[in-house]
Amino acid sequence: MEAFAHQLQQLAKVAVHVGLGLREGQELVITAPIEAAPLARKIAEQAYRAGSPLVTVLYDDEANTLLRFQHAPESAFDKTPKWLFDGMAAAFQSGAARLHIAGNDPNLLQGQNPESVARANRARSVAYRPVMELITTHHINWTIVAYPHPAWARVVFPELSEQEAVQKLWEAIWKASRLDTPDPVATWQAHNQNLSMRVNYLNHKRYSALHFKGPGTDLLVGLADDHVWAGGAVQAKNGAVCTPNIPTEEVFTAPHKDRIEGYVRSTKPLSYQGSLLEEIEVRFEKGRVVEAKAKSGGEVLERVLQTDEGARSLGEVALVPHSSPIAQSGVLFYNTLFDENAASHIALGQAYSECIEGGSQLSPEALAAKGANSSLIHIDWMIGSSQIDVDGITESGQSEPLMRAGEWV
Amino acid sequence: MEAFAHQLQQLAKVAVHVGLGLREGQELVITAPIEAAPLARKIAEQAYRAGSPLVTVLYDDEANTLLRFQHAPESAFDKTPKWLFDGMAAAFQSGAARLHIAGNDPNLLQGQNPESVARANRARSVAYRPVMELITTHHINWTIVAYPHPAWARVVFPELSEQEAVQKLWEAIWKASRLDTPDPVATWQAHNQNLSMRVNYLNHKRYSALHFKGPGTDLLVGLADDHVWAGGAVQAKNGAVCTPNIPTEEVFTAPHKDRIEGYVRSTKPLSYQGSLLEEIEVRFEKGRVVEAKAKSGGEVLERVLQTDEGARSLGEVALVPHSSPIAQSGVLFYNTLFDENAASHIALGQAYSECIEGGSQLSPEALAAKGANSSLIHIDWMIGSSQIDVDGITESGQSEPLMRAGEWV
Ligand SMILES: [Zn+2]
Ligand SMILES: [Zn+2]
Ligand SMILES: [Zn+2]
Ligand SMILES: [Zn+2]
Repeated sequence: MEAFAHQLQQLAKVAVHVGLGLREGQELVITAPIEAAPLARKIAEQAYRAGSPLVTVLYDDEANTLLRFQHAPESAFDKTPKWLFDGMAAAFQSGAARLHIAGNDPNLLQGQNPESVARANRARSVAYRPVMELITTHHINWTIVAYPHPAWARVVFPELSEQEAVQKLWEAIWKASRLDTPDPVATWQAHNQNLSMRVNYLNHKRYSALHFKGPGTDLLVGLADDHVWAGGAVQAKNGAVCTPNIPTEEVFTAPHKDRIEGYVRSTKPLSYQGSLLEEIEVRFEKGRVVEAKAKSGGEVLERVLQTDEGARSLGEVALVPHSSPIAQSGVLFYNTLFDENAASHIALGQAYSECIEGGSQLSPEALAAKGANSSLIHIDWMIGSSQIDVDGITESGQSEPLMRAGEWV
Repeated sequence: MEAFAHQLQQLAKVAVHVGLGLREGQELVITAPIEAAPLARKIAEQAYRAGSPLVTVLYDDEANTLLRFQHAPESAFDKTPKWLFDGMAAAFQSGAARLHIAGNDPNLLQGQNPESVARANRARSVAYRPVMELITTHHINWTIVAYPHPAWARVVFPELSEQEAVQKLWEAIWKASRLDTPDPVATWQAHNQNLSMRVNYLNHKRYSALHFKGPGTDLLVGLADDHVWAGGAVQAKNGAVCTPNIPTEEVFTAPHKDRIEGYVRSTKPLSYQGSLLEEIEVRFEKGRVVEAKAKSGGEVLERVLQTDEGARSLGEVALVPHSSPIAQSGVLFYNTLFDENAASHIALGQAYSECIEGGSQLSPEALAAKGANSSLIHIDWMIGSSQIDVDGITESGQSEPLMRAGEWV
């Protein structure tokens, strides 16, 4: 087997056995860019070898997405294939696991009408919500892995030829995904164990808030009542133990949507559905964004904030040390799966109910009462760096150092 | 635009404007092999230009199909993505048009366990039935076009390199689809007009049976009560006028399932879901196959006949002159879309309700009472050639010559 095919197979093994924790007899639905077919096939093979009876791959073809914005009538963009999302929800309701292959052209929609793009995204988010809820509540085991899509590689390494860029991006994915070890499945089990210890420490501490301080940032993020820290492996409701992101370096919890104060500046560019948002600066009062600007992509940011009421508050706060392999690589991936794992971050929009004690059993109203935010969107952006300090604030108001210069103390 | 891209665009125009008769504002669902993405994109573009708000492409990846037969547990093959087919049915119920791009590896499943393949096909047919009924009853406008899949091209032209074979198959598709004219859309309108005149003649005649005679064949095919001949363009229930197959050369109707007598030999190989059936010989009594053999693929034929009761009778009889461009090309396409249009043919299995007067309003029982056959399958195989004569038998029992030496008299 050639080297690349062998490496794909290693990633496929980690995806099936660590990412999904696929159970014998369990069906699998894969969503993937059409360019990632070589990896989708390797994963399907590993899933079948692990006893899956049926792997269905839904390929996404970005070329068609672009043609729509170029040629469809203006009235088109409120339509979305709800029938397909309802079908996926039915598959997950009946027990299928879910794997997504990330990797797309970050610049695909540059030059298209931002209003059309926003309408299309909103229509999709609404129709996709039943699927998203099954995923975020861990009704099923799921994971996301990445493939070096050529257009993505060109954005990350613009100075290289496409072939060289793909090769270099693949090496970066390979290292960032902790696959450069003799037994990647064992490596991941150890890494998940480390994340689990960090999670246990923070859950024991029960901080009422986190305080981020550094250049351009002085942000107090209140934590939701009965918040729970999470990170690494998760036991889904079907009993399977999955690792939802390959790679993952973060521990995260739910902010209190009404208790966020101060200002914050992004430390890395954010690639969001085809646009690049750079140097985001935001000020919060009583949990709501009251001022927002960006050096580039400001119009997209403004539209994002107008999605719904919850889009102006936070659904996630996450801590990642600057020594993570992704941060150390120095590569800006232009992709949240990687870039969020390079730095501590916050997310505008929806909170994970798993970040509230017993949250998956609570009504939307009960979750909101504890401070968990609700929105159609969930957009992570990076606020950590080697210049950022983080303190935990105890219930009695004392500061305890958590991170100094981007590292756990 | 390079020549191939221009030709794809011409086919895409015929597909959207003749094949589908796509209406402004109508959604479209495309099913296509992943290899046919270049054509799927051209069709999506033409659909958007014609005012479609949303084109969803469901790519089929045969490599995954094969991996399943190679690696999945034996218990797997009764599973099928019913959730996806239910989703497609919902799309068509709510008005979406449907386009399928044909072209696959005819030998894909050679060497796989025929019992597993048959079980998988049967499970798929059962779950797909709601979709198939919306298609066969013309609830929506639909069409099928073809793309020169490399593995398909290698089977058709085994003596050529893959690149040359693809080029040659594309030329053959191009000519067979009547695209080698200055204005293919106008060419197709004229061709549909010719088929329509032939259909009107046969519907006026109201023959009680057709009699096929030639080497290895002496077959009397009774026609269903209140049968209707069809061919070329069709008005779907949503009002759109579509041409369900590009190319199409046939006029066809429903046999009477209990009134088929005699023997018949296939005149071309039949490629059926990965197997090749050659020199099929079948004898009918009272409408049922009572003897069946084949020089190759006999085991597959036997399994097909055991699918259900209706698999042993006929759902279609079709007349195609030997002068059709496909027959004249001399190419064996190993694909029903083309090969059935090279010769008169019959189909084991399901009848089209459009071939019975008012059939789409009739219950399954009422259709059966008129002689229309019912089955999970519909498999066309070729019985016409330049050596076959066809007579129409009037209600009073007189023979009238319809075809001599494969040509209309
Ligand atoms: Zn995060
Ligand atoms: Zn997040
Ligand atoms: Zn036919
Ligand atoms: Zn047929």
